[in-house]
Amino acid sequence: MGQSTDRIPVAVLGSTGSVGQKFIQLLSNHPYFKVTEVAASERSAGKTYAEAVNWILPEPIPEDVAKLHVKECVPNKNCKVAFSGLDASVAGDVEEDFAKAGYIVVSNSKNHRQDTYVPLMIPEVNPDHIQLMEFQNYGEGKIVTNPNCSVIGMVIALKPIFDAFGLEAINVVTMQAISGAGFPGVASLTILDNVVPYIGGEEDKMELEPLKLLGSFTPQGIKFPDIPISAQCNRVGVLDGHTETVQIKLSKKASKQDIIDCWRAFKSEPQKLQLPSAPIQPIHYFDNPAYPQPRLHRNIENSMAVSVGRLRECKLFDYKFVVLSHNTVRGAAGGAILCAELLKAKNMLD
Amino acid sequence: MGQSTDRIPVAVLGSTGSVGQKFIQLLSNHPYFKVTEVAASERSAGKTYAEAVNWILPEPIPEDVAKLHVKECVPNKNCKVAFSGLDASVAGDVEEDFAKAGYIVVSNSKNHRQDTYVPLMIPEVNPDHIQLMEFQNYGEGKIVTNPNCSVIGMVIALKPIFDAFGLEAINVVTMQAISGAGFPGVASLTILDNVVPYIGGEEDKMELEPLKLLGSFTPQGIKFPDIPISAQCNRVGVLDGHTETVQIKLSKKASKQDIIDCWRAFKSEPQKLQLPSAPIQPIHYFDNPAYPQPRLHRNIENSMAVSVGRLRECKLFDYKFVVLSHNTVRGAAGGAILCAELLKAKNMLD
Amino acid sequence: MGQSTDRIPVAVLGSTGSVGQKFIQLLSNHPYFKVTEVAASERSAGKTYAEAVNWILPEPIPEDVAKLHVKECVPNKNCKVAFSGLDASVAGDVEEDFAKAGYIVVSNSKNHRQDTYVPLMIPEVNPDHIQLMEFQNYGEGKIVTNPNCSVIGMVIALKPIFDAFGLEAINVVTMQAISGAGFPGVASLTILDNVVPYIGGEEDKMELEPLKLLGSFTPQGIKFPDIPISAQCNRVGVLDGHTETVQIKLSKKASKQDIIDCWRAFKSEPQKLQLPSAPIQPIHYFDNPAYPQPRLHRNIENSMAVSVGRLRECKLFDYKFVVLSHNTVRGAAGGAILCAELLKAKNMLD
Amino acid sequence: MGQSTDRIPVAVLGSTGSVGQKFIQLLSNHPYFKVTEVAASERSAGKTYAEAVNWILPEPIPEDVAKLHVKECVPNKNCKVAFSGLDASVAGDVEEDFAKAGYIVVSNSKNHRQDTYVPLMIPEVNPDHIQLMEFQNYGEGKIVTNPNCSVIGMVIALKPIFDAFGLEAINVVTMQAISGAGFPGVASLTILDNVVPYIGGEEDKMELEPLKLLGSFTPQGIKFPDIPISAQCNRVGVLDGHTETVQIKLSKKASKQDIIDCWRAFKSEPQKLQLPSAPIQPIHYFDNPAYPQPRLHRNIENSMAVSVGRLRECKLFDYKFVVLSHNTVRGAAGGAILCAELLKAKNMLD
Repeated sequence: MGQSTDRIPVAVLGSTGSVGQKFIQLLSNHPYFKVTEVAASERSAGKTYAEAVNWILPEPIPEDVAKLHVKECVPNKNCKVAFSGLDASVAGDVEEDFAKAGYIVVSNSKNHRQDTYVPLMIPEVNPDHIQLMEFQNYGEGKIVTNPNCSVIGMVIALKPIFDAFGLEAINVVTMQAISGAGFPGVASLTILDNVVPYIGGEEDKMELEPLKLLGSFTPQGIKFPDIPISAQCNRVGVLDGHTETVQIKLSKKASKQDIIDCWRAFKSEPQKLQLPSAPIQPIHYFDNPAYPQPRLHRNIENSMAVSVGRLRECKLFDYKFVVLSHNTVRGAAGGAILCAELLKAKNMLD
Repeated sequence: MGQSTDRIPVAVLGSTGSVGQKFIQLLSNHPYFKVTEVAASERSAGKTYAEAVNWILPEPIPEDVAKLHVKECVPNKNCKVAFSGLDASVAGDVEEDFAKAGYIVVSNSKNHRQDTYVPLMIPEVNPDHIQLMEFQNYGEGKIVTNPNCSVIGMVIALKPIFDAFGLEAINVVTMQAISGAGFPGVASLTILDNVVPYIGGEEDKMELEPLKLLGSFTPQGIKFPDIPISAQCNRVGVLDGHTETVQIKLSKKASKQDIIDCWRAFKSEPQKLQLPSAPIQPIHYFDNPAYPQPRLHRNIENSMAVSVGRLRECKLFDYKFVVLSHNTVRGAAGGAILCAELLKAKNMLD
Repeated sequence: MGQSTDRIPVAVLGSTGSVGQKFIQLLSNHPYFKVTEVAASERSAGKTYAEAVNWILPEPIPEDVAKLHVKECVPNKNCKVAFSGLDASVAGDVEEDFAKAGYIVVSNSKNHRQDTYVPLMIPEVNPDHIQLMEFQNYGEGKIVTNPNCSVIGMVIALKPIFDAFGLEAINVVTMQAISGAGFPGVASLTILDNVVPYIGGEEDKMELEPLKLLGSFTPQGIKFPDIPISAQCNRVGVLDGHTETVQIKLSKKASKQDIIDCWRAFKSEPQKLQLPSAPIQPIHYFDNPAYPQPRLHRNIENSMAVSVGRLRECKLFDYKFVVLSHNTVRGAAGGAILCAELLKAKNMLD
Repeated sequence: MGQSTDRIPVAVLGSTGSVGQKFIQLLSNHPYFKVTEVAASERSAGKTYAEAVNWILPEPIPEDVAKLHVKECVPNKNCKVAFSGLDASVAGDVEEDFAKAGYIVVSNSKNHRQDTYVPLMIPEVNPDHIQLMEFQNYGEGKIVTNPNCSVIGMVIALKPIFDAFGLEAINVVTMQAISGAGFPGVASLTILDNVVPYIGGEEDKMELEPLKLLGSFTPQGIKFPDIPISAQCNRVGVLDGHTETVQIKLSKKASKQDIIDCWRAFKSEPQKLQLPSAPIQPIHYFDNPAYPQPRLHRNIENSMAVSVGRLRECKLFDYKFVVLSHNTVRGAAGGAILCAELLKAKNMLD
């Protein structure tokens, strides 16, 4: 990505955590945004970012960010956009404080996702939900949220099917990567040679968030479609990439080829606007019956595309298939950055 | 297990393969059976077992078997019982040859599982299917089969529910261990930091075999119940132990506690007969929401018990839960040995 | 192991940690000892052991211990023997308090290992160092320590060579299991698909502790032999079992067969006394050039034996070989219990 | 890398194997070379490359290569340069056939590495060994070889030390990635939760190849320096990246800082010539005591740089340190391509 001369200065909240680090890495050399502030807990405040962070990514710390002094998570109006990778234990209040101080907060935390006038957004899925923002009562400041990492890949794959054929039921079982739990996150003794068939709170999010994402804007908030969803979430010994088996009932009849055509043709707002982080083709369908696989396909299109395979008829639903997406890029920091890019393109950051 | 003075001499077919090795290890010091013949492909014939085998188990080769000379898979009537761990590419004919020669063949291979008069058997589930054997036309010889490794744990967990409340639908997604693919089996480059959402032929077996197992004996063969089953099978980087998420619709209403009580109370023929390999409690239910896990629970009751957890209501079915069983012991060699123990107890090996 | 009617009551200090758990599991049904007290930090005190502990072992919590109420780590004289799995941050003072109160403390912590009159002991290697205990000035109480987990396997393998041929230099590179770091210990994101070529403090211990273990008792303390040791310690993605490549220079000439004979013939005090946890053969030498391997050999003789292989000449030293031992059993709790068994056999616990 | 209009057509021998695939991936869009022929065993001949190959890399098959028809490994003079990823069982004769037919063969196979007039080459280490080529008696054709994957990283790290201070002894213990064994290579059952302390033939190569690499050109062949080397090779559960602990004795005194300065300043022929695959800085030294690590550092400078850390004094040698390099890129296909780039720059491909 080339550099713009007039990049928008942005803050990263929770900048030393695993999501915060990913924000900083992905924003390095971003054409729209430039990280000028890094905020974290009191413990880190005052140190340079390089001193404060236990950097866990293979890519080095961007040099300009390494030298920044970490500040506490208190709004200071030096910039107007804040990406939040805050822990849910503090994100609720801190994000509100920033919004009230006039910031556009783009958050990866769960706290405000179900607020009536806060968009829970995947730019390919529900870009029109931006309209909710004008109903927020933070003044100039706003909050926009990114869905849970296990939700994003599945809902991108479901969106063109939902639009074309309708959805009557969704059943999903996940095999989620350890990076989804942050750092240190999952102990190695817990996951080596093992599966943990439980991730606290995850199933609830998977059964609820898709409904807001696929819902319709109204001035009273998003109207959720009436689709029962059942989710079962498992942790497996994979570094990055959530693999999910999905079963669906459709409202209208569709052939297998109809659905594959839908996926392959799918382009949405970020593609039309040519947003810098947008994948050219959001959904890649594979014919190889053993695909997609996290190690082979999580990095397609800079980890922003979703990979799908094994579409086949199901004895209990209409169809079943496998979907894979990169949980810390498309499913977290990258997805949130794409949201901010959409806001920029819509002149919401001016 | 103590040793009996009059142990029944048995052959192991396919003795150098991974299932064959497990048979030999589990039959070491068995109170009923003593391995006196080891058969394998032409390539191994003539060598001692220790020379022929690439032994992959942590336990050493039993000393008495190590010295045996490997023979080709041709019946020679030196014993009357044969355990088959043959590859499906040859098992069909070889097992018939042995049956025709008067052997009782207890097979872990898939070839004869759906033969009309061949019992597909889990001793806790359908011991009465032994009756099918008298309709076989091999003369004194007979074939009995063990189900697929992914099927056994699930069907043991379903059996008491099926008996008490009936089943209307079964949905299952598996996370299967690499040992299920034999040796060398899955390449390390294929599975390290990865999930493979496909196991050839596995889903078909999971959608069919439970129906025979839960079916009713008739002189015309087993009458399959009318239960639609949908299966999705995945390979994960776990050494031993298949973890499966199961969803069920019941015929009659049952509370969560009803089902747990059912599981905890479940005892069947092998328990009543106190067969040497039978677990005292076939199904262990865990209250810890993160259980069962393959590394923690696959070895319960000498790997012959099934572990179950996370029973909860489901938005699309009545209930969902997690089941775990050891795929090479309960799901293969150990399960087949338990079948042979049942035959012995029923005087079918006299 | 059968149960004795008059088992010695023992306390476990640091009972909720990973070493403490292993003590409790290994002491279950021990013929000499019975856990009657479990002590841990203030936070756990008052709860039952089952409530306080985050049990991470596949074996269930022993029922009699599960019900015990956890106490703080303050001596109360209800028993006389204490096994310590305390964290090094507190072990120094707490163990002294217990010794002063009259306890025989058998510790797996590093704090007192180099105290002049505290035996650093491997019962097969330096049982005569028990004599140091009478010089301690804690009154009736005493402290005995177990070496670091990376040291024990190597020194057991070196002991018969040292006695027969002398040692002039030792070079060792380790590949250590994650369980050596306790729980939660190593993050899965740190070690999956990775090697960490550093373990804080470990190399210093490996370069020093063997000298005390191979040293000679004098009333002024142990006289260390003059053997330069160089150690390099690495963490690898293995659950249990430290694998180490060792190179040695000998004082006297020895053939490869001489050394193998030495290893195979090695028996020491615990074998002569038939201590309950003693392996029958402390060192197992393998001819297979790819052995020993942690997953195949860590559990030999209830994880108390050491496995050795690949002895061959070296272009820079006299010989090089591979040694493997189970780090949490032989290298920690099991080794400490064997020390206590030796004390009992020597009437030091009366 | 941009594309040149006049790229040199090249063949890849053994093109369907794991090294062959890596050649094809790395040569895609190469500024000097264009793959126009893919050769493999008889079994693959006639199929398109996409049909013949079991592609195991995350990057897709380059489209232009996918359509090529695979030929047998017989020289046909359609191009003049051949990269060989042939299996050692056939590489010896096939490579000679191609050389005799006029090809410049750049080989990753071991067969001709020790031929008197065949350069065993790392372009940063011994570019002057190219002179050997004129003494070969294949006519216009020539053979150049790339060292073993475990050798390259270590020797790059040793080269500037050897030049500045001399080397008296080298001791190395490796922890090698599974990709070094090709595909399917190491079975997952062999390496998950395990270490294999043996790699057939590897230690011999590590004790010999560095001597040719660090040797001096003479018209009678390379004069090997007199440096004893001892190597111990282990396989660990890492996908890519060989980690090695190295100990050295120097001829002249050097401080720790002298050596680090040496490494950081090191530039050689490929850097001066700005060869397209050359890393800008061949050796990266890390101050973090836990670095380098394969997952964090194997991809530095497109996987062509070598990472070094933990330089410290040694009780038995002068210094010890850790070196890491990417075994299939720098240690195989990438290293061989860099050799070819050097030949091109030296007008040896005209």
